Amino acid sequence: MTDPKIKTDWVAVDWGTSNMRAWAMSASDTVLAEATSDQGMGKLTRDRFEPALLAAIGDWISGPTTVVACGMVGSRQGWVEAPYATVPCGILPTDLVQAPTTHPDLTVHVIPGIKQTNPADVMRGEETQISGFLARNPGWDGVICLPGTHTKWVHISADEVVSFQTFMTGELFDTIAKQTVLRHSIATNGWDDDAFAEGLDMGLSRPERIAARLFSLRANGLLNDMPGTAARAQLSGLLIGVELAAAKPYWLGQRIAVIGSSGLSKLYVDALATQAAPATQVNASTITLAGLTAAYKRLKG
Amino acid sequence: MTDPKIKTDWVAVDWGTSNMRAWAMSASDTVLAEATSDQGMGKLTRDRFEPALLAAIGDWISGPTTVVACGMVGSRQGWVEAPYATVPCGILPTDLVQAPTTHPDLTVHVIPGIKQTNPADVMRGEETQISGFLARNPGWDGVICLPGTHTKWVHISADEVVSFQTFMTGELFDTIAKQTVLRHSIATNGWDDDAFAEGLDMGLSRPERIAARLFSLRANGLLNDMPGTAARAQLSGLLIGVELAAAKPYWLGQRIAVIGSSGLSKLYVDALATQAAPATQVNASTITLAGLTAAYKRLKG
Repeated sequence: MTDPKIKTDWVAVDWGTSNMRAWAMSASDTVLAEATSDQGMGKLTRDRFEPALLAAIGDWISGPTTVVACGMVGSRQGWVEAPYATVPCGILPTDLVQAPTTHPDLTVHVIPGIKQTNPADVMRGEETQISGFLARNPGWDGVICLPGTHTKWVHISADEVVSFQTFMTGELFDTIAKQTVLRHSIATNGWDDDAFAEGLDMGLSRPERIAARLFSLRANGLLNDMPGTAARAQLSGLLIGVELAAAKPYWLGQRIAVIGSSGLSKLYVDALATQAAPATQVNASTITLAGLTAAYKRLKG
Repeated sequence: MTDPKIKTDWVAVDWGTSNMRAWAMSASDTVLAEATSDQGMGKLTRDRFEPALLAAIGDWISGPTTVVACGMVGSRQGWVEAPYATVPCGILPTDLVQAPTTHPDLTVHVIPGIKQTNPADVMRGEETQISGFLARNPGWDGVICLPGTHTKWVHISADEVVSFQTFMTGELFDTIAKQTVLRHSIATNGWDDDAFAEGLDMGLSRPERIAARLFSLRANGLLNDMPGTAARAQLSGLLIGVELAAAKPYWLGQRIAVIGSSGLSKLYVDALATQAAPATQVNASTITLAGLTAAYKRLKG
């Protein structure tokens, strides 16, 4: 609940495919309250975004209120399409798009994603994490890795997003572990550091063998009673290894920051360390709010 | 239906995870009748195999009848476990295992699969296609590729299976096309030869980029209106290209036969042709029956 003595000045919203998260912010950019909702973009038709937002944050509104939102809320299937900026582009968003609203006190600004023409690539949401990280680390140059369902590697130089590349590694891991014959061989949780290291080495050194290594996990389960936890960790290492082999032009000899959930980020930091590539681990959730705050400040000028 | 004037001498059965196919054979190894069933191994508990078989071929039995079966029917979850032979091993099966039956005239022999200890690998069913191909091509040396859900590359020398390697390429294609974000970008059918060639080249030349290439299919759909048929063909080319990059020690400079369904086999033959590796395409269904016939002949000694 909002402290009734402190007025909400503006609202920060991270609105993804599956979930929505909102923060009530004071004029001095402190967090007054938080709200979450399972009404992600994927569940909403265009006219259901405003009701979903008001259901979550309605009691924070006691006068004209500005909302700044990032993520899939700005996609073609979202509340309003916020056309992509094109790399190279500044790390602070311009051209926020106003979403149609009916509530008299509500103004909603949506942050655009970023696209790259060649090779074709897109991001929505990560651009806000990037600007949040840069707001906290002014003038930082290097490469940001944002691991997740669709892991991004982003080259930052002179306060610009120069180029980026997306890897479907996280989604491959989930799909292979749950939807293929390997579901019989891979535990739903648990871990084995040595198996991860072995998979990582396989992926880095012989990435072309990926489809054979996958079947080996099955065969090792059948013939050698390989434990499901080891198979799970080796699959993760294999896929991250193949990704690191391809992303080498990004990370080799660069300053690296890894922004994401703590468990997955640590895997990337540890994997990069085996390649003599030290990386800094950054907590994703505080960084998203920093990015939304930077966008609000720029909006207010 | 069986011709009533000609008695069924024995029955050949190809019993996989999803389906079962049976042939009534004369004493001179001609096909008298065929039957198919959707009662694959995956749908049956151990005590339901005999009823499922009799439902399909019961009216062929008019006296003592020998059945020879290959495939997942011999797995641990099948009718009876037929323990794997271990490479290197002869191309004709030994140690067929008799399945428990209650019908007084029925004797069922199950062909064992083949395993490899290091790297760990298994096959069940393909060994029968291999012996069928060798029965028709005595003394053949070279490499057999059996494309499918789990594609096998098999090195044959001096009538022995020397080594083999399984690639999960077919299952990856199906799973990625249907169960990931790419389902929005990939047509359920249709084709584009140029897009296949492009994907093949990507996979062969830079296999480590696989997870990035996958996301590019999505981004090209969003940004460049890439047609779903082109995305489908490029995904197929990419995955086959990555496989060929890894299987190169198998096919380089070798005599190659490709045994499988005609459409998929042709993709492999065409892909190998781009690498100056000519391959012979062989029809899988007649080859399976030839392998079952070879096993029956050896059984009868």
